[in-house]
Amino acid sequence: MPALITLLTDFGLSDPYVGVMKGVIYSRASDVRIVDVSHGVPPQDIRWASYWLERAYAWFPRGTVHIAVIDPGVGTDRAVLVHEAHGHVFLVPDNGLLSHSLRSSADAVTRRVDVPALAYPTLSSTFHGRELFAPLAAELASAQRQPSELGEIAQNIVAPRLSETVTSPGRVDGHIVCVDHFGNLITNIELPARAAEERANLGLHLGEHAFSLVETYGQLEVGASGTLVNSFGTLEIVSRDASARRNYGDALGSPVSLRWSPK
Amino acid sequence: MPALITLLTDFGLSDPYVGVMKGVIYSRASDVRIVDVSHGVPPQDIRWASYWLERAYAWFPRGTVHIAVIDPGVGTDRAVLVHEAHGHVFLVPDNGLLSHSLRSSADAVTRRVDVPALAYPTLSSTFHGRELFAPLAAELASAQRQPSELGEIAQNIVAPRLSETVTSPGRVDGHIVCVDHFGNLITNIELPARAAEERANLGLHLGEHAFSLVETYGQLEVGASGTLVNSFGTLEIVSRDASARRNYGDALGSPVSLRWSPK
Amino acid sequence: MPALITLLTDFGLSDPYVGVMKGVIYSRASDVRIVDVSHGVPPQDIRWASYWLERAYAWFPRGTVHIAVIDPGVGTDRAVLVHEAHGHVFLVPDNGLLSHSLRSSADAVTRRVDVPALAYPTLSSTFHGRELFAPLAAELASAQRQPSELGEIAQNIVAPRLSETVTSPGRVDGHIVCVDHFGNLITNIELPARAAEERANLGLHLGEHAFSLVETYGQLEVGASGTLVNSFGTLEIVSRDASARRNYGDALGSPVSLRWSPK
Repeated sequence: MPALITLLTDFGLSDPYVGVMKGVIYSRASDVRIVDVSHGVPPQDIRWASYWLERAYAWFPRGTVHIAVIDPGVGTDRAVLVHEAHGHVFLVPDNGLLSHSLRSSADAVTRRVDVPALAYPTLSSTFHGRELFAPLAAELASAQRQPSELGEIAQNIVAPRLSETVTSPGRVDGHIVCVDHFGNLITNIELPARAAEERANLGLHLGEHAFSLVETYGQLEVGASGTLVNSFGTLEIVSRDASARRNYGDALGSPVSLRWSPK
Repeated sequence: MPALITLLTDFGLSDPYVGVMKGVIYSRASDVRIVDVSHGVPPQDIRWASYWLERAYAWFPRGTVHIAVIDPGVGTDRAVLVHEAHGHVFLVPDNGLLSHSLRSSADAVTRRVDVPALAYPTLSSTFHGRELFAPLAAELASAQRQPSELGEIAQNIVAPRLSETVTSPGRVDGHIVCVDHFGNLITNIELPARAAEERANLGLHLGEHAFSLVETYGQLEVGASGTLVNSFGTLEIVSRDASARRNYGDALGSPVSLRWSPK
Repeated sequence: MPALITLLTDFGLSDPYVGVMKGVIYSRASDVRIVDVSHGVPPQDIRWASYWLERAYAWFPRGTVHIAVIDPGVGTDRAVLVHEAHGHVFLVPDNGLLSHSLRSSADAVTRRVDVPALAYPTLSSTFHGRELFAPLAAELASAQRQPSELGEIAQNIVAPRLSETVTSPGRVDGHIVCVDHFGNLITNIELPARAAEERANLGLHLGEHAFSLVETYGQLEVGASGTLVNSFGTLEIVSRDASARRNYGDALGSPVSLRWSPK
């Protein structure tokens, strides 16, 4: 099976930045496949990217190399990490992109890339996606290099930017971590097992607003809002045939809480 | 020739939804090619998508599998159709996406997909593009499944959302069905044969505005507006070096009529 | 190595225009790879596209065929050029897209495509990207045609739209030629050799604003602005963790000058 490389950046698609990364990849590994996961991460929003890195990888074949370049520290001495987990390889700047979940995989190994040892041409100060991440992913995907050869096991890496949710009696606290194209407000809160069956007054709270749990969009009246478990496993606030962002504001980064009482 | 799959959705490109569909496709059929037709269909605009499904497919090789996921009924019991026409395969929710033209092809066969018989993992209630359309397209494109094995011939399917134009003496009535990136207002009206030669006072009418027929942009003064037959065979309203949408409003869904008198 | 075709247009990504070009390419050359350089060129902005055509090609393998379709003259009798330079092939309308730099390559050969001799189906008046550029690029990339067979050496072609910078004592004059996704204001001015070391009071001037030269974003305070050499070799105006476009206006097309005094 041809190797696969995925790209997740905050570069947008209007400029040639993503295109030239692909040119570099194909220059080094002509038979790989490249998939754009997203280039619509808001500039420098490490948390947003971290959420999707954690939630999207499993839909790709094992052995896929996932590049995430949300890199406000480009040009500084921030490290670059190669992380193996769940049979996938992640290539990221060391700035909190790797979530708790990705780091705690039973097979997780994180290495700090010894960049000088790669002997690549001198890096620019602004576009390591092109000069470092792209060629290295190409070499990893085509087995010209192995993760184990890239550097020592990383001892201290930057703490995950995607904070863990906090569970206490009768509630789970989290955040709005992404607002999607449809205006859905996506949280990092997973629904506790059997929550809907065993708990009363279950609702997701955002500021003064409370949202009841539904299973499908169709259970909402047109224009009405609620919360449901999205197809990536966390709760999101939705408005039927409408935009929750328009109804409740962007809310990106806002705290949310799931609350209930015992039945 | 490697098989080809095209994607037409209202998912936008800022989120990973399209990317994970590609991950699923490559997981099941590593040697296919995937082309994005458009992910910029306005949310739930079945008519817009239907227009492009009908007008774009013929530019792809015969045997291409075309996925269209504009699916407001996801999570309900709406059916899924596999439609063969003109040597192409179309995989769509049963919501009016298949136009009259695609349905009336001499070789047209429409089947209702027996989803349980596919034995796929349980579907989420919100993302059948990933869990049903993507894997099924991969299996069709790589000949792991044939359309004829997927279910019974569909007896009653939802009426086309792209309405047919209505011809009467001296006029053809239709609608603005799409507004493109350049602000061109695209109608579903085809120019009747020899219209320009045999008819006088030929004009396209949108509300109070009337537009004369030109053959190329270059026949318009800079800033002037007119109508021409676009490269997909229907009339559109254009403003030279400017945006008809800006000049005449979005107009999406508005009725338009082509009118003339005999010469 | 499979052949590569790149696409640079002002078509945007919301409509199927780019997708059908890919359908045509794969119909003629099933084993090529296609990379989107950008479809976010502002409508008809030949200068913007010319800058990126000149600056992006070298990151792709030699032998790549680069299509640029920014084509306000489509439907007129403007010529189509096939240009060889630096081991790459460029396929463009004759409207100034080829920069001085691409034209002055030691191995540069420019031919005017004899379109009737291609014996393609009749062209539409509005979409030569699909009917001419796409199939011809496919045939070039797959060696079904050679550039030398396509027509005579072009004698007079349209002057480059990307003007050369003008150097005079103590200054270099140029323009803002592109504003990117991050709001960086990109100029066509290259930093003269040893400028930073040998010259005093070095600054980039845009209207009443003057920007000091920095080497990395990190040398700027958060919110502060300066100029740096971008990863494609020209000066750009940047605001740290902010948008220079928001701070100084879009400025696209504005004159800028790099000025200094001897040390």
